[in-house]
Amino acid sequence: MSTTRKRTSPGASAVFDLDQFLATRTETVNRALNRFLPGGRVKPATMHQAMRYSLFAGGKRMRPALCLAAAAACGGDEAEALPLACAVECIHTYSLVHDDLPAMDNDDYRRGKLTNHKVFGEGIAVLAGDALLTQAFEIAAQARGWPRYPHKELILELARASGSLQLIAGQVADLEAEGKKIPTAQLRYIHERKTSALLCASVRLGGMSANCTPAQLEALTRFGYNVGLAFQVIDDILDLTQTSEKLGKTAGKDTKAQKATYPAIVGLEKSRRIAAQLTGRAYDALKIFRGQAPALEALAAHLLKRDR
Amino acid sequence: MSTTRKRTSPGASAVFDLDQFLATRTETVNRALNRFLPGGRVKPATMHQAMRYSLFAGGKRMRPALCLAAAAACGGDEAEALPLACAVECIHTYSLVHDDLPAMDNDDYRRGKLTNHKVFGEGIAVLAGDALLTQAFEIAAQARGWPRYPHKELILELARASGSLQLIAGQVADLEAEGKKIPTAQLRYIHERKTSALLCASVRLGGMSANCTPAQLEALTRFGYNVGLAFQVIDDILDLTQTSEKLGKTAGKDTKAQKATYPAIVGLEKSRRIAAQLTGRAYDALKIFRGQAPALEALAAHLLKRDR
Repeated sequence: MSTTRKRTSPGASAVFDLDQFLATRTETVNRALNRFLPGGRVKPATMHQAMRYSLFAGGKRMRPALCLAAAAACGGDEAEALPLACAVECIHTYSLVHDDLPAMDNDDYRRGKLTNHKVFGEGIAVLAGDALLTQAFEIAAQARGWPRYPHKELILELARASGSLQLIAGQVADLEAEGKKIPTAQLRYIHERKTSALLCASVRLGGMSANCTPAQLEALTRFGYNVGLAFQVIDDILDLTQTSEKLGKTAGKDTKAQKATYPAIVGLEKSRRIAAQLTGRAYDALKIFRGQAPALEALAAHLLKRDR
Repeated sequence: MSTTRKRTSPGASAVFDLDQFLATRTETVNRALNRFLPGGRVKPATMHQAMRYSLFAGGKRMRPALCLAAAAACGGDEAEALPLACAVECIHTYSLVHDDLPAMDNDDYRRGKLTNHKVFGEGIAVLAGDALLTQAFEIAAQARGWPRYPHKELILELARASGSLQLIAGQVADLEAEGKKIPTAQLRYIHERKTSALLCASVRLGGMSANCTPAQLEALTRFGYNVGLAFQVIDDILDLTQTSEKLGKTAGKDTKAQKATYPAIVGLEKSRRIAAQLTGRAYDALKIFRGQAPALEALAAHLLKRDR
């Protein structure tokens, strides 16, 4: 499952070692995040420990991996994408910390560990989320800019994907849909914002760090959009079919909270087909890279087949 | 009280009409914020209504006024400081929305109106704060950059002043000091971060928008630092001496929450002397502008003498 034949380049016979890619990039990203963040003893120590607790709680670093892979696909230096990869991970982590709060999803476990507010209390958890969100912009500002993609564009990309029309809109619509029967179009609206927006920004920012062409950026946008939607459909499937132990978070909570999900609306089998179809569209978007985007291909396949 | 003789320019006899300055700039800033923010009917409407509820709840717009006044002092065009003025106001408002949450200060009233979570619920209030914080960076990125102050520097300035070492550090230290007797140095640490950091960034960003000289930036930094400290000392005094009606928020809550404040530690009279002394230092910092910073002078005097 971890090695994938290149599908968009039929002639190539090389296999891509995704396990190794993920292991090395996770280490690189973790080291960089450790450098970017104030140390756990820096005053106020509670705050920096709370930020680090959630940031280093064993996240899969999928968004940073996608960001770095996109940079590589565009012929860029992954090191120049690193601040942006770290920034999206900070945004992702802050959104989880706030999402787990009692006033929101009220979750006690995340990635197999107690959630931030269970360890540090609600007040600190709110502030730790705020600090991670703020830190994301401080880190992103340290990326390299290009004339085509100056800092202004990088910051706008990150802010818009995370703002009230995208990531936060998804959270709100998700909250508001609880206990209601919603049409598939509304569910799609939620997924596009709650998950696709930041995944899409991750690959786009990776491309921008590599000074990609407008056509490459367009391809990455389509890739990120479809991979993001597939990712959320699969998340919903896993919530229904896996144990809490396996997921490291409370399984079955979508059903319990009467959340709108694909499995709830169209059933499990059709949900699986939809996820596969979206992943297929993501592959298609990569054609422009003529087989030179093996990491992105392997990540898309991996995200479709993951079991946690 | 609203017109102030120029103190640093003994020769000048002109008086500065601060009331008019504040009225016109408040209107300009409100119009700009209204343009920058998605409309109250834009989906998700709840979110944009919640953001707008707190942003247009009658805030005094002191930080934007300081930002615009600093730009003018440096010979700049106030219009070019406007996005930065709006950005600091978004940061300020988000910090109030989160600070009022039950898990933090648990306040029901702010500026004479129900707090955000009392109207929209805790979940939406958390997200509205997040959205305002994110919006701040989206707005700031739209400011004009200069070779000396490119977007990278503007974003770093805003993020650092708002981050875990400054604004958020102040909130954390404030929470942790509740019910404890702390030394004056620790109280100063809290005020520097909770209030001075963002006030200081407001005038610095105003200066940067005007492509100020390094010496002007240094002067604005000293001005903002001292005005910020004075501002917080006066806030503590007003909490003790004014009614809730006058303040538009719960008065006496510092005492009730056993908050560390200057009046609690050094008494009311000495607190007033300290505030005046800090304001004096702020005036001194303006000498470099040779009387061409009347709005900054008048604002410092106004902030010292305000009664709400």
